[in-house]
Amino acid sequence: MTAKAQFHFADRLNAAITKKKSVVCVGLDPRLEQIPGFILKKAQSAHKNPMTAAAEAVLEFNKGIIDAVADLVPVVKPQIAFYEQYGHEGMRAFEETLHYAREKGVMTIADIKRGDIGSTAEAYAKAFLGKVNLFGKEVFSFNADAVTIAPYLGWDGIKPFVAEAKKYGKGVFILVKTSNVSSSDLQDLEVRDAQAKDFKAVYEIMGHFVDSWGADEMGDSNYSLVGAVVGATYPVQAKKLRQIMPQNIFLVPGYGAQGGTAEDVKPCFNEDGTGAVVNSSRGIIFAYKDSEQYHEKDYADAARDAVIKMNKELAAVK
Amino acid sequence: MTAKAQFHFADRLNAAITKKKSVVCVGLDPRLEQIPGFILKKAQSAHKNPMTAAAEAVLEFNKGIIDAVADLVPVVKPQIAFYEQYGHEGMRAFEETLHYAREKGVMTIADIKRGDIGSTAEAYAKAFLGKVNLFGKEVFSFNADAVTIAPYLGWDGIKPFVAEAKKYGKGVFILVKTSNVSSSDLQDLEVRDAQAKDFKAVYEIMGHFVDSWGADEMGDSNYSLVGAVVGATYPVQAKKLRQIMPQNIFLVPGYGAQGGTAEDVKPCFNEDGTGAVVNSSRGIIFAYKDSEQYHEKDYADAARDAVIKMNKELAAVK
Repeated sequence: MTAKAQFHFADRLNAAITKKKSVVCVGLDPRLEQIPGFILKKAQSAHKNPMTAAAEAVLEFNKGIIDAVADLVPVVKPQIAFYEQYGHEGMRAFEETLHYAREKGVMTIADIKRGDIGSTAEAYAKAFLGKVNLFGKEVFSFNADAVTIAPYLGWDGIKPFVAEAKKYGKGVFILVKTSNVSSSDLQDLEVRDAQAKDFKAVYEIMGHFVDSWGADEMGDSNYSLVGAVVGATYPVQAKKLRQIMPQNIFLVPGYGAQGGTAEDVKPCFNEDGTGAVVNSSRGIIFAYKDSEQYHEKDYADAARDAVIKMNKELAAVK
Repeated sequence: MTAKAQFHFADRLNAAITKKKSVVCVGLDPRLEQIPGFILKKAQSAHKNPMTAAAEAVLEFNKGIIDAVADLVPVVKPQIAFYEQYGHEGMRAFEETLHYAREKGVMTIADIKRGDIGSTAEAYAKAFLGKVNLFGKEVFSFNADAVTIAPYLGWDGIKPFVAEAKKYGKGVFILVKTSNVSSSDLQDLEVRDAQAKDFKAVYEIMGHFVDSWGADEMGDSNYSLVGAVVGATYPVQAKKLRQIMPQNIFLVPGYGAQGGTAEDVKPCFNEDGTGAVVNSSRGIIFAYKDSEQYHEKDYADAARDAVIKMNKELAAVK
């Protein structure tokens, strides 16, 4: 890696991983029902409109988490569904969460799983990674460091994201093998190759696509700005995918609450211990609910403790 | 169809199609660069913040279109990317566009192409179709009549949408064969069946999934609340899919600007002429740019004329 200020997404992420000695990504998936009561009450007494109050509670909760983990994690990943629930007020909380993380020196992955035809994908890419034309002036809108993308529409729905990412030092993570049980419905279907001699699962084909789509977009750290989402809950498939995509960073969901263990995510890393960030959401941000040692006022401390624990678990197997 | 007020999504949509004698869906995909100058200027002089001005321009533009076509079309489909571009202000315009259409007696499909693991899909489903829990009170958030869904994650990412849809008389349209060129990358891969005797394309498999996922959700009009997205640009595939999914409503994008013709969409309908709505976006909302007969002040009239023309084209082949 060069000493100069990094611009390429993979270089920036790898530098942050090295600096913070951590591959943990904290999933900011706030559920109002699980946010500490003192935050909810404060937001409710400050705002009559319940949507505004909900969005404010989410934002304050997130700020507490970000403050508590900023020196320990390279990246956070807000999942947009939990913000969209609260309409445009929720989206303001999403925007401000991304902004706050950036201020605190934490990179951001907007977990949006978008994907559409080319002209629409371009609008998404400008909205979340690049700049939007506002009456002749180009300005950042959400300005995340990376996004997740659903690949059902193929390359022309992904290309505009890669183009914007390249322009602004951002990255993309394409869904390859997701962590949920029914990911097998589509992703495990067996496909025959052109000569009908061999069969591959859809997720393997997607792995080859990601490898080739990212091949021209390498950084100095030998990783592409095009990454892949590979679930912690499928270690056997992850091992295959690591071989298919040696130079693509894996974003690994499914750790903790979804059942993935440190041992399970081991195959997501290359042999030198690089090449993946591991996300945990509920297991970190709502850790204060998992043990009687924490009062709800300690939710941020509990999250910090959970990150330290997760980093230790991962260090033991890497 | 029963005489009582319809509650089931397919019955409501079919009743609206019958009432308005139209299967046209107007895609509300506003691009700031193409919105008439007088709307832009008005928004800019009313709002200092350019994001607010952009969102206001989009909303006023949409209201003009909705007013002009409300008696002619059963449904409109705002594509969320074009609103997300303008951050949370854009999302307010999205919310208010849905609300305005509803007030004018036009149904709405929120073209969001979401899809995620179960717990996240549930949050999306509540945000866009159902009700959100706000400090103990259940309230609608975006309250669209239907959404589009990307199926890469399989059934557990779709089930929560179907559950919310059923509860509130709403619908879903699952991507099966999309209108873009590279839809073949993934959707046309050839998959072998369990006995390795036969091969089917991924889009056919998805068609069978949609047929079975929607089988328990039939309305009085003999269509399911689970529909499918099938592009106007692939008539051969549409014909196959119509046979695989006789009771699922097709949402057909790709008409007009993307190249699909009336002849191309014919196979998307069942023999009795029911079973599909055909979307056109740019070809309708920016019709004022296609002919010198229109001044920019006439953009809404131009859109109305374009809908009338499209309805005639479709009537000629149905």
